[in-house]
Amino acid sequence: MNPWHLVRGLARLVAGRPRTPRALAGNETLRTVLERRSIRRFTDRDLPDDVWRAILEAGRVAPSTVNLQTWTFLVFDRAGWEATFDRSLPMGAPRAIMILADTHRARRVVEGFPSVPMCDHTVGVMNASLAAMNMTVAAEALGVASVMLSETGKTGFYDVAELATVLDLPPGVVPIMTMVLGWPAAAPPPMPPRLPLEAIAFAGAYRETPQRVLEDWYEQMRAGYRASTGQDFQRQIDHYNRRLEAAERELRERVLGPDDPVR
Amino acid sequence: MNPWHLVRGLARLVAGRPRTPRALAGNETLRTVLERRSIRRFTDRDLPDDVWRAILEAGRVAPSTVNLQTWTFLVFDRAGWEATFDRSLPMGAPRAIMILADTHRARRVVEGFPSVPMCDHTVGVMNASLAAMNMTVAAEALGVASVMLSETGKTGFYDVAELATVLDLPPGVVPIMTMVLGWPAAAPPPMPPRLPLEAIAFAGAYRETPQRVLEDWYEQMRAGYRASTGQDFQRQIDHYNRRLEAAERELRERVLGPDDPVR
Repeated sequence: MNPWHLVRGLARLVAGRPRTPRALAGNETLRTVLERRSIRRFTDRDLPDDVWRAILEAGRVAPSTVNLQTWTFLVFDRAGWEATFDRSLPMGAPRAIMILADTHRARRVVEGFPSVPMCDHTVGVMNASLAAMNMTVAAEALGVASVMLSETGKTGFYDVAELATVLDLPPGVVPIMTMVLGWPAAAPPPMPPRLPLEAIAFAGAYRETPQRVLEDWYEQMRAGYRASTGQDFQRQIDHYNRRLEAAERELRERVLGPDDPVR
Repeated sequence: MNPWHLVRGLARLVAGRPRTPRALAGNETLRTVLERRSIRRFTDRDLPDDVWRAILEAGRVAPSTVNLQTWTFLVFDRAGWEATFDRSLPMGAPRAIMILADTHRARRVVEGFPSVPMCDHTVGVMNASLAAMNMTVAAEALGVASVMLSETGKTGFYDVAELATVLDLPPGVVPIMTMVLGWPAAAPPPMPPRLPLEAIAFAGAYRETPQRVLEDWYEQMRAGYRASTGQDFQRQIDHYNRRLEAAERELRERVLGPDDPVR
């Protein structure tokens, strides 16, 4: 990478951080939402019960389509994770919540729904993600650090076949992601670069983000990744790519059933 | 419906409301998250620019898989919605944000991803929903009422074919839901019944929610629906069912492509 691009990328990273509008700066909740950071380093200390319960409660009361609550939360401490998966809880966190899209439960009581696996999957992923974000904000409000994992350490939909087997999940239940949580062991890292609002929000009609804006953002991504890990971002991308074709097969089989043709 | 069941359902509705743990009751952000309600009645008054911008900023800074920000926000005022869709903005709200799962944009700049439409859809829906929840919490923090719609008034993935045509969306862009927003015109309605935490969160292994708990919850759903609308909840379910088979076909074609066989 051109060193000047690296410096320019880092400068834009700093300039692009979220800002609370001045007139709204006294709003504690808004500040919490805008300044929230994903944290990947935790102390050994466990979470107290009331804090843990409050975070799960935020998932329980999240909104969902027709209030069907198409989610299940599998909760783990370190020992429970190791007993289930025979490996350490990712990032040394003391707790984890695996969030499953679960349309199986509602189908047991709501009568007459036709078989619509792609709609089920979409509504399941949507609602599970709403619950996950609500829990993340609640954790942040309580000073609890967290990060949502879906492709690191067999934690979500990229490893659906293995997780469904280990957890003995019924059809209609799809692991989406795992939140790992604990007390932060370090100051928050800088926020990874976000695209400017003008590149992702449009009035009334879809517009293509200019290629120059995209390339500029991607340069920031690579500069930030190199600054924080010393490695090339393309290595991370290549790592996902190696998993993706198997993940696609497994996910289609899980969502659409084993008889559905795979392209 | 048995009147005693109705009374019992309503009593449990009240008893099942979210509670902030006593020791954490001073936490404003936690309270905002736990007491947030979906609101469907709005005053005529528009939102000021700084409030509107802060809500969108909460979407922009939401977390996403590999920070790929696979979302697009289409923003509307009443006139813009009517000009685009030739109908009124749902529920008389002054503003709307249609949230699209968008893996098309990232694919223009990140190199070498294989074609994995089900993974793209899953990651797109997940990230779009995280952004939607972050915007909802930011709105709530600012006193702005909102509700996320995905099946009411052609606002989300149940009407993907029509929306993709009207909005001229490229492949890889899927409308998921629409948040409608404004100042609340009425006190919040009671929270619709949530399943108890013990029925949706399990330590270490998936468990089936007892049928009795599910039926009890569904009785509360029906009682609450009847109390607020005077109608039978089964009517709402039947309404969705009539749309679902067409939605399944349209969504599969949008996500998997027109050549993919439909079961």
